[in-house]
Amino acid sequence: MFTLKPESPTPLVSQIVDGFRRLVAEQALKPGAKLPSIRAFAASHGVSVFTVVEAYDRLVAQGWLVSRANAGFFVKRRPGDAPAAVGPPQPDLRFDARWYLTQIFESRSLALKAGCGWMPHDWLFEEGVRRSLRQLATDGAELGGYGLPHGHMALRMLIAESLAEHQIAATADNVLLTQGSSQALDLAARRLVKPGDVVLVDDPGYPNLMFMLRFLGARLVGVPRTPGGYDLAALESLLVEHRPRAFFTQPRLQSPTNSVAPLAQLFRLLQLAEAHDVALVENDIYADLDPESRPSLASLDQLKRVIYVGSFSKTISPNIRVGYLVARADRLDELTQLKMVSGLTSSDLTERLAFGALTEGRWRKHLKSLRDRLAAAHAKVSQRLVDLGFELFNEPKAGMYLWARHPDLTDSAELSQQAVASSIMLGPGELFLVEPRPTGWMRFNVAFSDDERLYGFLAQQIALQAQSAAA
Amino acid sequence: MFTLKPESPTPLVSQIVDGFRRLVAEQALKPGAKLPSIRAFAASHGVSVFTVVEAYDRLVAQGWLVSRANAGFFVKRRPGDAPAAVGPPQPDLRFDARWYLTQIFESRSLALKAGCGWMPHDWLFEEGVRRSLRQLATDGAELGGYGLPHGHMALRMLIAESLAEHQIAATADNVLLTQGSSQALDLAARRLVKPGDVVLVDDPGYPNLMFMLRFLGARLVGVPRTPGGYDLAALESLLVEHRPRAFFTQPRLQSPTNSVAPLAQLFRLLQLAEAHDVALVENDIYADLDPESRPSLASLDQLKRVIYVGSFSKTISPNIRVGYLVARADRLDELTQLKMVSGLTSSDLTERLAFGALTEGRWRKHLKSLRDRLAAAHAKVSQRLVDLGFELFNEPKAGMYLWARHPDLTDSAELSQQAVASSIMLGPGELFLVEPRPTGWMRFNVAFSDDERLYGFLAQQIALQAQSAAA
Repeated sequence: MFTLKPESPTPLVSQIVDGFRRLVAEQALKPGAKLPSIRAFAASHGVSVFTVVEAYDRLVAQGWLVSRANAGFFVKRRPGDAPAAVGPPQPDLRFDARWYLTQIFESRSLALKAGCGWMPHDWLFEEGVRRSLRQLATDGAELGGYGLPHGHMALRMLIAESLAEHQIAATADNVLLTQGSSQALDLAARRLVKPGDVVLVDDPGYPNLMFMLRFLGARLVGVPRTPGGYDLAALESLLVEHRPRAFFTQPRLQSPTNSVAPLAQLFRLLQLAEAHDVALVENDIYADLDPESRPSLASLDQLKRVIYVGSFSKTISPNIRVGYLVARADRLDELTQLKMVSGLTSSDLTERLAFGALTEGRWRKHLKSLRDRLAAAHAKVSQRLVDLGFELFNEPKAGMYLWARHPDLTDSAELSQQAVASSIMLGPGELFLVEPRPTGWMRFNVAFSDDERLYGFLAQQIALQAQSAAA
Repeated sequence: MFTLKPESPTPLVSQIVDGFRRLVAEQALKPGAKLPSIRAFAASHGVSVFTVVEAYDRLVAQGWLVSRANAGFFVKRRPGDAPAAVGPPQPDLRFDARWYLTQIFESRSLALKAGCGWMPHDWLFEEGVRRSLRQLATDGAELGGYGLPHGHMALRMLIAESLAEHQIAATADNVLLTQGSSQALDLAARRLVKPGDVVLVDDPGYPNLMFMLRFLGARLVGVPRTPGGYDLAALESLLVEHRPRAFFTQPRLQSPTNSVAPLAQLFRLLQLAEAHDVALVENDIYADLDPESRPSLASLDQLKRVIYVGSFSKTISPNIRVGYLVARADRLDELTQLKMVSGLTSSDLTERLAFGALTEGRWRKHLKSLRDRLAAAHAKVSQRLVDLGFELFNEPKAGMYLWARHPDLTDSAELSQQAVASSIMLGPGELFLVEPRPTGWMRFNVAFSDDERLYGFLAQQIALQAQSAAA
């Protein structure tokens, strides 16, 4: 196929990646063609299987190959190619939220990720991370120790300054760095929730949080989201009826509905939490995507009752796994002990990478361009969905998501399983419900949804429904 | 003090680090001298406070400065300097294991870490990590995505090959990458232990594991360690009496005793676990430090009952936070779901760094030299302790620790508090006991204990005890 040069300064992995890219570009390997197995390639080229795994893995990540379980690696089909030979959905498969979540994270091979919960990698700050990597490799920082229990000090100070800009008076002593916002939520949940406790969550809301809380033995009660934020009357009666221990909520640009709770609702929510002695965990991971300067629960209550959670996964990269938790100093000490007990320190190295990316000068420009791209995608995607007859829950013009349904598509879980055959990943509403049931609502990630294949598929499905209704 | 050049290609942080190093080296800043405050330095040099924090932090990590709470940053005293002006131990402080653990991880400022649980950073594979960073910065790997739920595939395959060398038949499908071995233990504990369950642990054993299990509501029962491994008669009656759910144990080079359970004990332990239906979690994080090829529980039972835990924190660096858990495929699926629910994926970036360090050619040479250094340190430290009249629990000649006591030093917790005044961190035995009580036993980390200041302090304390006994 091509010749490797072990003596070249170019690493073998890169040589293999470049070699296959060239073969695909020159059509010597056609779309859908099967690659040699990892062991066969390693044997015939006299390199380690690990080198080949690394190269194939990188080609998959870069979108040149797809990997199919128990079948091997294949040259990926591009939009212009003949349709992909993806297997049909398994007809006997009942929709299972946990299964679907795992699949979402494993199915790099689905071509179009219209429903996913992450950013396209080229919308993120990869260049900032890469420059930060280069600096860390050369500047003599010590890389052989554990970090501090709270995490890298300079990054904590930087986060505290940024919180101050958002009207949350915090110092580095209020900031605990975590392995993404997920560990922050997990620590807060483990600290607050005992088996049997009732916990309130947004409904629809974040599926992984629901699994996490249920794993801890919590009984979940959903607080309905409305296009304008919360249903406060419902919240009030749930507080009286269930006497919950805590409310885990996402006031701003909420996933999946993208609704934003306005100031007056936040104020009322804090009053109710005070009156019913409910702990509040505010998941504000979309704050940096918000072009408007809006209040948060933490900015009103100044961390008296609120535990605040943030992340760089939607702005720098989820790959570095850096998130944070902000709380009153006494609470933070307990949460830090729990962090140490359950996993010791977080990675000082990736925290330094985040710090480097945030301070290298291009960060604010990157954030601005990310918000502009999201706003443009919102305009396009909402128009296309409306043209197809979709109803939009709201029109946020910011953040990552649109929550929408079509009168003829009444079961989005079933639709999502159909979509797999077209290599499309949808975000079926059932996944996000506290009590799963069939629903037409779906989450669209606008960053991935500006794609003709999606609208082609949806139009075809709508037409099929119209036909069968007419028959 | 010195002039910064913002237009220079050298980052400002490095300029500040270099500037202070020069001032200290030239004695323009004397040992013990106070540095300008972060804000003062930032203001007078026209740089951001974050730049200064990062620079000071790096100087602390490199051992040029010490930081004292509420006091500021000071030039560190070296062995030849006048004694450090460290505050006296607080006399009203009762020994508190959790407090001491937190202090251990926060007290970078203690000059001599004779009792700590990590490797000196210059014994680790910092150069491998640095080369790996450089490669990752330049080779175009995608850095903007989540990793896979199980972790980076090439690293998992590499671990599986290494397990095969250790007679554990595993494939990548049996390997789950975690945030250090601590997350691996936490996942296994959360999977296995329900509140009220009895769980067996090594006694003395790993304090963080005990906190973790107690946090989950486990009732801990200690299995006595002997110089030759386990007290199997005691284990057998504990199994009958307490009907435990699981046994978390470290057969090889155990912390703190460094004892090794031989083949016949491992076999009997597996028989007993089978008879009493006890889950076994084998923490084998010191395996790569073992110059001998020895069996493990997992190599006998081939993952039928055993969950196996490993790490790169003692060999590459704890900074990258890469550990792993090895289990039967069906068990691993459950543990993977739990990993995803409680923190999503681990960092693909640091897993790539580990893979790079392991495959870049100098890894085996590094491991060999690490083992040689440990063996040499064992020889020296055990001789020095014996010369002072210490009794050694055993003489392992490998691994990180020596477990020892002196007939005149009957409370090592009290001794550890005295030692803080000499800027020495000890490993008081009380910390490692399932039921804490005063004890003379102490853990010495041989990699840090080949240091005259330690023996000077111990000799002085022994003399003081002899005086007060004579008085």
